[in-house]
Amino acid sequence: MNKIITIGREFGSGGREFARRLAETLGYEYYDNEIIMEIAKNTALSEEYVRQVVECEPHKLYPITIGNSFSYVDNYAQQQIQSIYYAQSKILKELAEKSNCIMVGRCADYILREYNPYRIFIYASLDSKIKRCVARNNGSEKYSEKEIKKYIEKIDKQRAKYYEHYTDQKWGNKENYDLCINTTNLVIKDVVDVVAKMLK
Amino acid sequence: MNKIITIGREFGSGGREFARRLAETLGYEYYDNEIIMEIAKNTALSEEYVRQVVECEPHKLYPITIGNSFSYVDNYAQQQIQSIYYAQSKILKELAEKSNCIMVGRCADYILREYNPYRIFIYASLDSKIKRCVARNNGSEKYSEKEIKKYIEKIDKQRAKYYEHYTDQKWGNKENYDLCINTTNLVIKDVVDVVAKMLK
Repeated sequence: MNKIITIGREFGSGGREFARRLAETLGYEYYDNEIIMEIAKNTALSEEYVRQVVECEPHKLYPITIGNSFSYVDNYAQQQIQSIYYAQSKILKELAEKSNCIMVGRCADYILREYNPYRIFIYASLDSKIKRCVARNNGSEKYSEKEIKKYIEKIDKQRAKYYEHYTDQKWGNKENYDLCINTTNLVIKDVVDVVAKMLK
Repeated sequence: MNKIITIGREFGSGGREFARRLAETLGYEYYDNEIIMEIAKNTALSEEYVRQVVECEPHKLYPITIGNSFSYVDNYAQQQIQSIYYAQSKILKELAEKSNCIMVGRCADYILREYNPYRIFIYASLDSKIKRCVARNNGSEKYSEKEIKKYIEKIDKQRAKYYEHYTDQKWGNKENYDLCINTTNLVIKDVVDVVAKMLK
């Protein structure tokens, strides 16, 4: 059976960089936005719409193009969301069958539970996440720290709701992961080096 | 500055074995019950009583030998408990100054926060913890699984209360640790091997 690592992460915790670098170091495939594109192909929905579905709160989402009455819209939207979720599950399983890989987000830890993935969750203090976001913007003052804080909280709330909607588990709850890593004040590259040593 | 590792652990998660083996592998000092004995010496209280204080719910504890009125008992008990906590803090700091070390429980992650310890929390599913306790008893049927489950829950509740009483933080909350390791179905020796590689 292939080795599967799933990575959940708080926004600004460096989880995405961690996942990409870890995949490079271990020589594993890395899947993130690529998954969305695959889903788009499989469901004949636009990539933009699929991205909206997988990144937003599913219960708040309405279809882009159609809808006569509210109940009809609701029903149709729910069907689309469900079909995207099932397509996503199917693709994740296909990818898991193909090779060793690292998957970021997308409830992969839950969807692939039969594959016995190694489930990592990356988190950090709010201050550290704000600092990381500021650094990512090359220190430009386009957004205030207050705006960044609000954005981080919004995204994490969305991720939590999406995860909880489909898994019936609490997002970020340590019981759902094998390893939880606090990246507060750490350089992600250094964290990757030690975790790679651990997993090799 | 010496390297300090603090280990919080759920009862039955293998945290104590993990800490002892990790200390052996890394060549660090290891402190657990030894600390209690040191405290006993420093506070001129019996070892048994100190053990009762550091392992039980502090707000429920009454002194063993004296007490005329309830308020007097309460006051005296509180003073004793506080003095043990301060003695414990003092000893932990002295030990942290002496050499690289691993400390189990005792709010060490909080007390030694100025020493920037590497804070690990060890946990596991309830089923896995019950299995580990049964194995520890060499499979003897002295206690039923139901009794063991009740005991695990009781001890963890006590640990949580003790920790929260003194630190004003939630015990086991991943935000208070650098690394949280789920030992469900794992052999502790194997976990130690990978974490030691990571920390070396």
